Amino acid sequence: MAELANYVGLDVGGTTMKAAVVTDEGKPLSKPVVMDTHPERGADAGLETMCETIRRAVSAANLTMDGIAAIGVATPGLGDIKKGLIIDPPNLKPWKNVAVRDHIAKAFGKPTVYQNDANAATYGEYWVGVGREAKSMVLFTLGTGVGGGIIIDDKIIEGEHSHGGELGHLRIDMPDRGRNCGCGARGCLEAYASATNVVRRAREDMACFRGPSSLREFYTANNDVFTAKLIFDHATKGDELALKVVDDTAYYLALGACAAMATVDPEMIVFGGGMVGSGEWFRKKIEDYVKRFGLPYPTKSVKIAFAQLGSDAGFIGTAGCARMLYRGLTK
Amino acid sequence: MAELANYVGLDVGGTTMKAAVVTDEGKPLSKPVVMDTHPERGADAGLETMCETIRRAVSAANLTMDGIAAIGVATPGLGDIKKGLIIDPPNLKPWKNVAVRDHIAKAFGKPTVYQNDANAATYGEYWVGVGREAKSMVLFTLGTGVGGGIIIDDKIIEGEHSHGGELGHLRIDMPDRGRNCGCGARGCLEAYASATNVVRRAREDMACFRGPSSLREFYTANNDVFTAKLIFDHATKGDELALKVVDDTAYYLALGACAAMATVDPEMIVFGGGMVGSGEWFRKKIEDYVKRFGLPYPTKSVKIAFAQLGSDAGFIGTAGCARMLYRGLTK
Repeated sequence: MAELANYVGLDVGGTTMKAAVVTDEGKPLSKPVVMDTHPERGADAGLETMCETIRRAVSAANLTMDGIAAIGVATPGLGDIKKGLIIDPPNLKPWKNVAVRDHIAKAFGKPTVYQNDANAATYGEYWVGVGREAKSMVLFTLGTGVGGGIIIDDKIIEGEHSHGGELGHLRIDMPDRGRNCGCGARGCLEAYASATNVVRRAREDMACFRGPSSLREFYTANNDVFTAKLIFDHATKGDELALKVVDDTAYYLALGACAAMATVDPEMIVFGGGMVGSGEWFRKKIEDYVKRFGLPYPTKSVKIAFAQLGSDAGFIGTAGCARMLYRGLTK
Repeated sequence: MAELANYVGLDVGGTTMKAAVVTDEGKPLSKPVVMDTHPERGADAGLETMCETIRRAVSAANLTMDGIAAIGVATPGLGDIKKGLIIDPPNLKPWKNVAVRDHIAKAFGKPTVYQNDANAATYGEYWVGVGREAKSMVLFTLGTGVGGGIIIDDKIIEGEHSHGGELGHLRIDMPDRGRNCGCGARGCLEAYASATNVVRRAREDMACFRGPSSLREFYTANNDVFTAKLIFDHATKGDELALKVVDDTAYYLALGACAAMATVDPEMIVFGGGMVGSGEWFRKKIEDYVKRFGLPYPTKSVKIAFAQLGSDAGFIGTAGCARMLYRGLTK
């Protein structure tokens, strides 16, 4: 590497956007600058907020734009990655057909790359997170929904229609009996394993669980603050009902992992998002189910891991994509 | 391309092996030379048969080895693609840990590439078959089992453990209720959509189908010659029972296609093998189910197609892999 350079990574979400300057080694030069997205104010206002977030991130790093080699911006789908276009994402309504990459490139006069947010987070973990030693990696992000990304030999599998790594919509049960997914289909992994659906399944399981349960007692008293985290907490303390819900979650995630193995057979499968804060015992459960239900040969050596960068993966990975644009394919 | 070159493609199966010389444009210079594999005679005999098949293919093309730029050899899994090693394939018992690539490279003094047979067939269709205009393609091969391959931007997704594109073991139903697969697991696509399992499902459906059926009449008189092809023939003639079996097959294949779309989102999904001989009406059925059950945005433009090279895809694709080795990544 001839000379070290810095990159801005901007990770736009439906509620807030975050940006920071990241070095060639993947180290953020400050805490991320966070601004509200306010998608309802329209795309022009959104683009201006993006530029302002980038400017503030550069200031927070005690740099000027002269110190920036390239910029990366990531948004939730639907987008056109090759064209740098936000098409019509459910989380950014009413934005439509926004040429975000070209706008930012022009505003700052810097090489700019556009990426899907889950792909970018995957690249972050692959570049400097848990996958930094790996040659191929699949990430499942567990949040309100389930997202994902696939990287093979330093290359993000973007897909012909920018839908590569839409792992939340991998189907784990048949359409005639699978759970209803927010996307309208049935049987999608997201309908089982997103935080929202873990809560939903817990309520269902509660309705037929016979034994005593601290989780049910809590729910009866506080059903308005019932979250996936609470379920994991009760499971950690040994509550049988909560343990069933968590165990089923691990099983469903393992089925998703098996599908990733039968298609791209990665070196490493990573799970990220709030639920992985529950720790090693949950990872072990997923791994055990992968070993039970995966293809024998690859399951012997595939690595099942939890993400390490938390919510920083997005802007770090986006900066990493900018670095890829600037330097070519390399870790 | 400075100077045109020729390549030998050798496609080894459990029963026979086939080889032919293929030009830089993907045109075979003769019909393939076919020899019996006789895996039971051991790996040394097998390697000698491979060399003999290659020699005969070069003769059949009216060439000498001087006219050959590189050699490709493909075998059914389990293998180690990077190391050029046949590990322990069920169809080539008792061969184990056979360094096939290095053996052939040494025997002929030519650059030699090793590939999984389904990956090679996929590359054949991608290079000069139905996918010749595509930038990414997934192939499902429908035979005694279901195999597959994935190509993204000229690159075969081999997988970290040489299990990329093991699409027959994509699970389309849950392990607690899915059909039993030959691999020991339950719910694999192969357990629904291989020729063997189409026949098995037809027998099961027959046991509960209420109406009259020409397929059942045939089966009652000739149950020893009951094949997938017969079922498709009766379906073509409008037999309701046979139509149900074929329709279900299209549905299951579409679920496999949807999983390929949610992971790698290819430009084109191709089906090959005996069943696709039944023609356009069957392709249309698969396409209709993909449009109904796939992610809305990519399904709008994904191409669902049938393979064009038949059983030649294997040796042509293997020769194509040799060409890739010789020329670098390019169509």
